[in-house]
Amino acid sequence: MPPAHPFDDDKLKEECGVFGVIGVADAANFVALGMHALQHRGQEAGGIVSYHPEHGFNSARRFGYVRDNFTSQSLMQTLPGPLAIGHVRYSTAGSKGAAIRDVQPFFGEFSMGGAAIAHNGNLTNADALRKELIERGSIFQSSSDSECIIHLMARSLQRNIPERVEDALRRVEGAFSVVAMTRTKLIGVRDPMGVRPLVLGKIGEGWALSSETCALDIIGAEFVREIEPGEMVVISEKHGIESVRPFRPQPAKFCIFEHVYFSRPDSIIRGRSVYETRRQIGVELAREAPVDADLVCPVPDSGTPAAIGFAHESGIPFGLGITRNQYMGRTFIEPTEQIRNMGVRLKLNVNRALVKDKRVILVDDSVVRGTTSRKIKEMILDAGAAEVHFRIASPPTAWPCFYGVDTPQREKLLAATMNEEEMRQHLAVDSLKFISLDGLYRAVGEAKGRDTKCPQYCDACFSGEYPIQPSDMIEKGFRLKAAE
Amino acid sequence: MPPAHPFDDDKLKEECGVFGVIGVADAANFVALGMHALQHRGQEAGGIVSYHPEHGFNSARRFGYVRDNFTSQSLMQTLPGPLAIGHVRYSTAGSKGAAIRDVQPFFGEFSMGGAAIAHNGNLTNADALRKELIERGSIFQSSSDSECIIHLMARSLQRNIPERVEDALRRVEGAFSVVAMTRTKLIGVRDPMGVRPLVLGKIGEGWALSSETCALDIIGAEFVREIEPGEMVVISEKHGIESVRPFRPQPAKFCIFEHVYFSRPDSIIRGRSVYETRRQIGVELAREAPVDADLVCPVPDSGTPAAIGFAHESGIPFGLGITRNQYMGRTFIEPTEQIRNMGVRLKLNVNRALVKDKRVILVDDSVVRGTTSRKIKEMILDAGAAEVHFRIASPPTAWPCFYGVDTPQREKLLAATMNEEEMRQHLAVDSLKFISLDGLYRAVGEAKGRDTKCPQYCDACFSGEYPIQPSDMIEKGFRLKAAE
Amino acid sequence: MPPAHPFDDDKLKEECGVFGVIGVADAANFVALGMHALQHRGQEAGGIVSYHPEHGFNSARRFGYVRDNFTSQSLMQTLPGPLAIGHVRYSTAGSKGAAIRDVQPFFGEFSMGGAAIAHNGNLTNADALRKELIERGSIFQSSSDSECIIHLMARSLQRNIPERVEDALRRVEGAFSVVAMTRTKLIGVRDPMGVRPLVLGKIGEGWALSSETCALDIIGAEFVREIEPGEMVVISEKHGIESVRPFRPQPAKFCIFEHVYFSRPDSIIRGRSVYETRRQIGVELAREAPVDADLVCPVPDSGTPAAIGFAHESGIPFGLGITRNQYMGRTFIEPTEQIRNMGVRLKLNVNRALVKDKRVILVDDSVVRGTTSRKIKEMILDAGAAEVHFRIASPPTAWPCFYGVDTPQREKLLAATMNEEEMRQHLAVDSLKFISLDGLYRAVGEAKGRDTKCPQYCDACFSGEYPIQPSDMIEKGFRLKAAE
Amino acid sequence: MPPAHPFDDDKLKEECGVFGVIGVADAANFVALGMHALQHRGQEAGGIVSYHPEHGFNSARRFGYVRDNFTSQSLMQTLPGPLAIGHVRYSTAGSKGAAIRDVQPFFGEFSMGGAAIAHNGNLTNADALRKELIERGSIFQSSSDSECIIHLMARSLQRNIPERVEDALRRVEGAFSVVAMTRTKLIGVRDPMGVRPLVLGKIGEGWALSSETCALDIIGAEFVREIEPGEMVVISEKHGIESVRPFRPQPAKFCIFEHVYFSRPDSIIRGRSVYETRRQIGVELAREAPVDADLVCPVPDSGTPAAIGFAHESGIPFGLGITRNQYMGRTFIEPTEQIRNMGVRLKLNVNRALVKDKRVILVDDSVVRGTTSRKIKEMILDAGAAEVHFRIASPPTAWPCFYGVDTPQREKLLAATMNEEEMRQHLAVDSLKFISLDGLYRAVGEAKGRDTKCPQYCDACFSGEYPIQPSDMIEKGFRLKAAE
Repeated sequence: MPPAHPFDDDKLKEECGVFGVIGVADAANFVALGMHALQHRGQEAGGIVSYHPEHGFNSARRFGYVRDNFTSQSLMQTLPGPLAIGHVRYSTAGSKGAAIRDVQPFFGEFSMGGAAIAHNGNLTNADALRKELIERGSIFQSSSDSECIIHLMARSLQRNIPERVEDALRRVEGAFSVVAMTRTKLIGVRDPMGVRPLVLGKIGEGWALSSETCALDIIGAEFVREIEPGEMVVISEKHGIESVRPFRPQPAKFCIFEHVYFSRPDSIIRGRSVYETRRQIGVELAREAPVDADLVCPVPDSGTPAAIGFAHESGIPFGLGITRNQYMGRTFIEPTEQIRNMGVRLKLNVNRALVKDKRVILVDDSVVRGTTSRKIKEMILDAGAAEVHFRIASPPTAWPCFYGVDTPQREKLLAATMNEEEMRQHLAVDSLKFISLDGLYRAVGEAKGRDTKCPQYCDACFSGEYPIQPSDMIEKGFRLKAAE
Repeated sequence: MPPAHPFDDDKLKEECGVFGVIGVADAANFVALGMHALQHRGQEAGGIVSYHPEHGFNSARRFGYVRDNFTSQSLMQTLPGPLAIGHVRYSTAGSKGAAIRDVQPFFGEFSMGGAAIAHNGNLTNADALRKELIERGSIFQSSSDSECIIHLMARSLQRNIPERVEDALRRVEGAFSVVAMTRTKLIGVRDPMGVRPLVLGKIGEGWALSSETCALDIIGAEFVREIEPGEMVVISEKHGIESVRPFRPQPAKFCIFEHVYFSRPDSIIRGRSVYETRRQIGVELAREAPVDADLVCPVPDSGTPAAIGFAHESGIPFGLGITRNQYMGRTFIEPTEQIRNMGVRLKLNVNRALVKDKRVILVDDSVVRGTTSRKIKEMILDAGAAEVHFRIASPPTAWPCFYGVDTPQREKLLAATMNEEEMRQHLAVDSLKFISLDGLYRAVGEAKGRDTKCPQYCDACFSGEYPIQPSDMIEKGFRLKAAE
Repeated sequence: MPPAHPFDDDKLKEECGVFGVIGVADAANFVALGMHALQHRGQEAGGIVSYHPEHGFNSARRFGYVRDNFTSQSLMQTLPGPLAIGHVRYSTAGSKGAAIRDVQPFFGEFSMGGAAIAHNGNLTNADALRKELIERGSIFQSSSDSECIIHLMARSLQRNIPERVEDALRRVEGAFSVVAMTRTKLIGVRDPMGVRPLVLGKIGEGWALSSETCALDIIGAEFVREIEPGEMVVISEKHGIESVRPFRPQPAKFCIFEHVYFSRPDSIIRGRSVYETRRQIGVELAREAPVDADLVCPVPDSGTPAAIGFAHESGIPFGLGITRNQYMGRTFIEPTEQIRNMGVRLKLNVNRALVKDKRVILVDDSVVRGTTSRKIKEMILDAGAAEVHFRIASPPTAWPCFYGVDTPQREKLLAATMNEEEMRQHLAVDSLKFISLDGLYRAVGEAKGRDTKCPQYCDACFSGEYPIQPSDMIEKGFRLKAAE
Repeated sequence: MPPAHPFDDDKLKEECGVFGVIGVADAANFVALGMHALQHRGQEAGGIVSYHPEHGFNSARRFGYVRDNFTSQSLMQTLPGPLAIGHVRYSTAGSKGAAIRDVQPFFGEFSMGGAAIAHNGNLTNADALRKELIERGSIFQSSSDSECIIHLMARSLQRNIPERVEDALRRVEGAFSVVAMTRTKLIGVRDPMGVRPLVLGKIGEGWALSSETCALDIIGAEFVREIEPGEMVVISEKHGIESVRPFRPQPAKFCIFEHVYFSRPDSIIRGRSVYETRRQIGVELAREAPVDADLVCPVPDSGTPAAIGFAHESGIPFGLGITRNQYMGRTFIEPTEQIRNMGVRLKLNVNRALVKDKRVILVDDSVVRGTTSRKIKEMILDAGAAEVHFRIASPPTAWPCFYGVDTPQREKLLAATMNEEEMRQHLAVDSLKFISLDGLYRAVGEAKGRDTKCPQYCDACFSGEYPIQPSDMIEKGFRLKAAE
């Protein structure tokens, strides 16, 4: 599967995007477009389930990009009807290998009719739930944690599906933004803390649910509002939108990394442009960690907005010192040892004429393992740069995420074992600075910075403070940060 | 075939890229990498021919991206040996439909052994040559003009292949950069005016020929020099590089559009960084056509360097007001009339928060038909921009190219029938300015601008002054610009 | 999917074949071979599940022939281990369209480990079972009746899988020969009446279960014995074969049509060669319905053994008057109306020189709709035959089968609405004779013919006497034969 | 590519079949049907060229069976027009590996228009011709000898294509039945000796040319006559059939092996049914080599007619002791050494009950290397046969064919190094008898047997008397039989 980000192996990866539409002709076509706009949230596979009053439920699940699968007329014609949901995903961390049966949405036939669900997030008590469900006679078809939800629904004693969704989600723990459908209803739910995003849009007489607003734009839908943490909306052509609150209220903990990297720059989160937030991170970074240099150069493409902000605030010229190959795909056969760092060269090329003899500030969104940062530094120096200064648009990533992001094990995270100066020496650069956690909070609009008593966001990957107990992981031996 | 530029249907398209390597183990792997770096020059298909002393000549030709074909070990193992050449291409303008037999390199078995050639450019007397060759008993396998070269070689009376290449190329007219190979030699030739690029690189003990320097970078080769207009180099492991001059000398006429759009920004042409030249075009444009505004926004991705230059020169902030979807591929099924401009939305999305209420300068590389410019303007206005000003990094494109670029018929070119003000009205924007031809020449380093007596470049697409007579086209009814 | 029998649309079709192996290295390879030998029992799709102590359960399910799927090394390497089962199938009558999730074996993960099952036959109470299971929270993944078995197993309270198999099968009604597997055991079961076949073989230190003996031959296994009606064998490497009797004893009712058509001629059923039985049917037919003629010609290939028997008994020369095209596959595009009966011509061609001016006896295995018989008759007459006499190696097929055979609805069966003379007139042949039911029983070895009190076989398709109540069908409106 | 005959590696293989149609709508559909009926003459690949007044020449060439390629509507729609020719082929002996460019028909664009040819046979002076043509500047696209013909046509000075065909064929030596087409004409030619077959049919207002009559039957065409040795027919919608004689007359030498094995049993050659001839061979064989036995068993399927004749003449019962698996395809992965002779078991299975304790006469069409005969004998003995007697329906094959048949090198032919008794010992059977050459001639209708002065057929594979000098092979060192 072709990776889209140049250094996928050295990035945190959002695991999923969800999208649903009701009340338009050929809803699946809109869903495909929405999934395409959410492709950055999951590039390995995608699936669509649609419902048509005459043709019933239909589904298609495929590996690969949306554009390569859900664009053929012959396939899309098998997905008729005014109601459809879709899902894009990365492979989940624990799975041995990709299997098409792991691709969502999941579907179940109940006595009152069929239902399908798609899930963005991660259930922290899935292992325990699965064990219990199997003991009671449920047969799992996938290795996906999300499948628990449909089995919990199948076993619910409620007489209609929305109530079965509530029943099921009250049994699960973790982060979830769920889009589900019955024969007549489109359902959206966010977990009580609202860790993962979910927004509502209006399209003609119909409605759409999406992980991000950029996917509303692509179908020409109007952005109405975010689904609130702990809210469940049930949308039908007959009754419009009904909103319920199935969970006990809890303080919101939206994932701050959505601002930093996961979401698309043209999406709007909590009323703020993601692009503008990232640009502001660059501004904060220029204030917190100024440096005398000749060129501000983004690590493409995710570092660009912060680099623009850094250049603007610092007055140092902005320039594209690194060109990204837009045709990247599968790994090439690397010819011989003659060539070092081929992996990077396939994806990026340094603009030698631009960086030669310059003191270069490289702005990147994050440092995970640090492997890529080293290679980029070498390329820049090979091209004749005089100095290399890294400025990172997020705090050190020192803790894994258990809420729907694919992070390496803790010991693989550079920041888990080194402090900033040790990392600078490890990367062998002239300077290395991360934005502070407070600086990040300021950039996302919290003028006073982080509320240490009750942080306004989930920032566990930086702080190690997990708002939801990662039960399954603790069972497997993961150690929480010692209370101070 | 997935288009790589967001508006391929409204861009001039380079038709080919060529690459060759001699003197390294598994040369085809290097060629595949080089082709990958040249993919922007031809995305429809690619081919490789290799030679191995024991396994002879082998070839593979495929539709689609290099990354999707020439990365499988099973395929690459069929292309062994220390010598290989490759070619990427768009479909040629005249062909009815793509056929694999049209994909280069072309191969011929001669009495003294086999040879393969790959051609970037276009022969302006190919129709006449083909007619003559068929009358003499040659059987053409493709609809490609370039096939004439191999048949001319087959009929040459010379006793070795390099001399047959000379013989053949002395019979053709037009623009050509050719890479050819025999069992022991790698050959590179540029037409007498040097319209298309070709550069020489050194890799270990071996050598490489490439359309652009960026493809030398990817394989770790050192850029040695450009092949000169009218030069032919014959490279063998035994004798190294021999340079001959088979043609009568003529003034050089390098394609100026390579600077503007075709070449990759990280390539070096005539000693100048393409990125820097484009940035300088933006600087010139800001001087020639200043405007009071709030945001300089590139039309991604090709307008970005000029936009950076324009912003820097004008002092107006630079910002990414348009986000490009990096997963673009085949056309989606457009749901219904509910949605206008779906085609554009699939590729681009406006960052509403950034452009709202702003006076926006859009910097694009060129205007061909103008269809895309209109749509982008509408998207920007829909997002709430106060004003839209277009600044174009090339002069008006008023004439078709016959030297290896896919241009629409003259009557489809907006600038062929309208002046600048008419175009402004047609696009319905607040202002529209193209860089002047002199300004463009200054940006590429000609301080005094264009030498009207003997222009330093081929700029026929802007000026209508064709340095090489387009004989076949005149035969078909094309009318040259009336002498003034 | 390429049909294998020339007139698949006018034949009864066995719906499945099952095969399993334990105690050999790479059991899946043996299973693939066995499935290949059973391909005539189900040509639409096939699946294999294997178990390896380290690699766990693995499965592959594919549409198409075994030879086209389960022969690739890359696929077979994904199915390691000493224990595997496989299944070949036709699509079931009721399904809307083929889906890969309908392809067996079915797999379930239980608290005590995984299990897979493959089923040949048909459950006559599947609709009712499915309804009940869904109400209790089971999620069905397929439209296959056989999936009920695995859900019943999942809900069983027994602590080991063989006992869960027993539990599940005691709840189902109908015809079933089941092959199942756990991590250590291969299990075979036949329904109490033994309607469908299942045999046991020995291969080296291991064991095999198969629908027919011909599949034991292909892997070099020795035929040990038939699994008895109502018997369940549990085979493990540790304990060898254990035999249990989970059901209340009932009189055996083996499907007599297995002798006539379904089974391969080189299989052995109840100690008799199928080929020899069919040849004997021809002998009986020649005695029951002699005719003065010049040539005994089989309708290839299934009519051949009976034709040999008929020729031998009657003394009339045997000859291949009809040639079958061995490369038949997908339907060709039929050129124009110029050509009649193209469908038949693609599959069969008459040997004109052989039949011209001859009185021809055509021996076929059965008449279902009669459409094919008409076309063959016309071809024979077009080729100049003087007379055409049909002799059919089975009694008139007047009733549908509900025990795992795909039969048309009753009203489509020619014999359901016409007597022999009416059929003769309908087919417009000189004579038409079916073997009598008693004659058929004699040919299969029952010297006294059919025991009308308690028939020795299931012959419902001829007699309308259904040994197992077809509950689901009666629910849907099917009417049993009125008691006389 | 799936082999169709169970022991393809131990059979002589006809290398090609040709078919052409003019004067019907959508001629390519008819050609596809004809090729399907000729599939036994070449199973590796097939190609069609069609011509439509508006859409010009179109072609499609594919590896694999006709049924798997030329049945898709999307492909066939690319081959419009009232005129088309097609070709099926085996790979030629000398080729390193199959390449699609080797698949016929070959097409050439000449100054007076295009032409396509398809060739059944083999040119014995192709190497010399190719060398000469390359020296003159022809570029060969394939490794096929037949490509010489189209290059000779391209270089002919004649002003119309039929005369260019004549010109070209007068330069070649060897065996050829050629079907060619221009924009308006269908052309058929047989070499002066008529070694390979070619017949003419009438279909509606149009005409067909075919290697065999069975392919006329499939499209509903009426068999008109054979094209005569040395005859060329030029068929146009305007002028009907014109017949010319371009070559010096020579005695006819039709390939006698077409009777024995290559042609389909339902074809008619020289007025005789191939089936009947083969049956008669069995009769002759029973007379020449009687044996006391219990069962006459054909080696399926090609030995069947001779076995029927043998059984009839001898009075010994005929029975299908060997069952052929009709789903044979690609090679299976052979599990382990546990299994001997898996290759044979995949294709054939012995009907144990039938052969047990019997003295079995196995009737096969030929013995080439003898490897298969050994395996079959072993299977029969393993199944308990008391004696095995081989009767072969052709004389010993002691010499390779150079006229379009794929034969092993002479030293691989069992009969090249052993006499009948040595072969019997080698095969370890109770008796082995081949039909005599005279017996074979009698069976094909020459009552007096073979005319040793001037044999009525080409029987070089049996006699070593080559009617056409195999020049290329002699050049490569092949030694003719010493004159006696």
